[in-house]
Amino acid sequence: METISENRSFGGTQGVYSHQATSTGTQMTFGLFQPAEASDGPVPVLWYLSGLTCTHANAMEKAGAQAWAAEQGIAVVFPDTSPRGEGVPDDEAYDLGQGAGFYIDATQAPWNTHFKMRSYIADDLPTVLSENFALDMDRQAITGHSMGGHGALTLAMGLPGRFRSVSAFAPICNPTQSDWGRKQFAAYLGEEKAHWAAHDATLLMQSKGFDGPILIDTGTNDQFGDLLRTGALAAAIAAKRQDAIMRMQKDYDHSYFFVASFMEDHMNFHAEALYA
Amino acid sequence: METISENRSFGGTQGVYSHQATSTGTQMTFGLFQPAEASDGPVPVLWYLSGLTCTHANAMEKAGAQAWAAEQGIAVVFPDTSPRGEGVPDDEAYDLGQGAGFYIDATQAPWNTHFKMRSYIADDLPTVLSENFALDMDRQAITGHSMGGHGALTLAMGLPGRFRSVSAFAPICNPTQSDWGRKQFAAYLGEEKAHWAAHDATLLMQSKGFDGPILIDTGTNDQFGDLLRTGALAAAIAAKRQDAIMRMQKDYDHSYFFVASFMEDHMNFHAEALYA
Repeated sequence: METISENRSFGGTQGVYSHQATSTGTQMTFGLFQPAEASDGPVPVLWYLSGLTCTHANAMEKAGAQAWAAEQGIAVVFPDTSPRGEGVPDDEAYDLGQGAGFYIDATQAPWNTHFKMRSYIADDLPTVLSENFALDMDRQAITGHSMGGHGALTLAMGLPGRFRSVSAFAPICNPTQSDWGRKQFAAYLGEEKAHWAAHDATLLMQSKGFDGPILIDTGTNDQFGDLLRTGALAAAIAAKRQDAIMRMQKDYDHSYFFVASFMEDHMNFHAEALYA
Repeated sequence: METISENRSFGGTQGVYSHQATSTGTQMTFGLFQPAEASDGPVPVLWYLSGLTCTHANAMEKAGAQAWAAEQGIAVVFPDTSPRGEGVPDDEAYDLGQGAGFYIDATQAPWNTHFKMRSYIADDLPTVLSENFALDMDRQAITGHSMGGHGALTLAMGLPGRFRSVSAFAPICNPTQSDWGRKQFAAYLGEEKAHWAAHDATLLMQSKGFDGPILIDTGTNDQFGDLLRTGALAAAIAAKRQDAIMRMQKDYDHSYFFVASFMEDHMNFHAEALYA
């Protein structure tokens, strides 16, 4: 693991690191905020999965998470959204290929050589984190924005026992029924829809649910509202009688201005679960 | 005035606007955060002047000011750092020309056609703001980062009665004695050093001081620490017996991670003066 940069932030350290990942076969970059408490011993960790077109940097710079993470003594990890670099396939569309890994393991060429973002988030990066930092991997929570909200919800339900709480900002809720999902799942996973279900939060809610609390915020003015299919997940949550809070935030849109506005709430929500 | 974008943010509105400026003779873009209270009537306003290479956008996206401005009911204006566009001269160095206006009115060719950033901040933009937004122009404060900290301090001392309080993050304190200053003042104002003194915070502190409180934060690990000449201003403040707090923040550097870490303190500091 290589240190790219470290900046003092809210009494802790905002670092950027890179490492060779087995899953993707590429050099991967991630951000990690460690609160001051990390110098005294392991701290809980919150995963923040980012949305389409983002790298590790966007949320780290714009979501305002550090202020509240420092207050709660929680580390925050900001992974990249796809493999990158020479030899990694891409597509000219913003929503496929680099910057658009969708947190799944591709099985179809040309994507199946490097696009293994689920394994990267579930296996590779946790190993790197636990080997290099004072993180309490028994106390993990996960959140994300848009495509990253999809990632947070599907990973939380797909890895029972891993995360104590899950939240999301304007998540893609039902990708198998959305243009943000069908195209990418077809490309990465093939046309067989049975392979898609494990990566759709609404379908996972119907079949499994989540053993912990859920918090979801979405803006009433979200310019991608139709693509998110928030209502499908809301219905599934109600039917499942899932412990969850879903909020439609009046006049907010899909931007980081929206994310930052509710970051304090999300951090406090996760802190309650992580320190329970 | 034209609206470029408006995003809901912390219960208020983060807008970006552009207008034709008399001073610079160019189309200028600025950001303005209006807290929820602005819909009920005029609110106090804090100016945030940015540093070298920045546009209006950097601090608006990375400084985390909206959270605390919303809490205090204060508007924040984020001006650009120079004129831009076709016909506006530039230099290949990052610290001269576009993105490096230094908040002064150039008198020397080729800069004197458009580089009038002091007049822009002191006269043009206040007019646009008061004509278009619910701002209480009798309650203004000013802050800034690096070159913008220089701008905040020199404008505050140079326009007595305009600003109730001034603060700065890692300001350039003594540009007439620094490579961040001499080169630019020579280019914009000419070699006659008598014309430089009105734009040097340390010299202004020696000659005039400021009729209000000052708060300055600088990181002990600032990579540009030598260029800032913090000590010269500190000595001038002490000699003047100026109402001021200067803090050296252990391990912090020059980045927005540093700025964001202390934004709450600065907002609270200004709120105390604005609501006195």
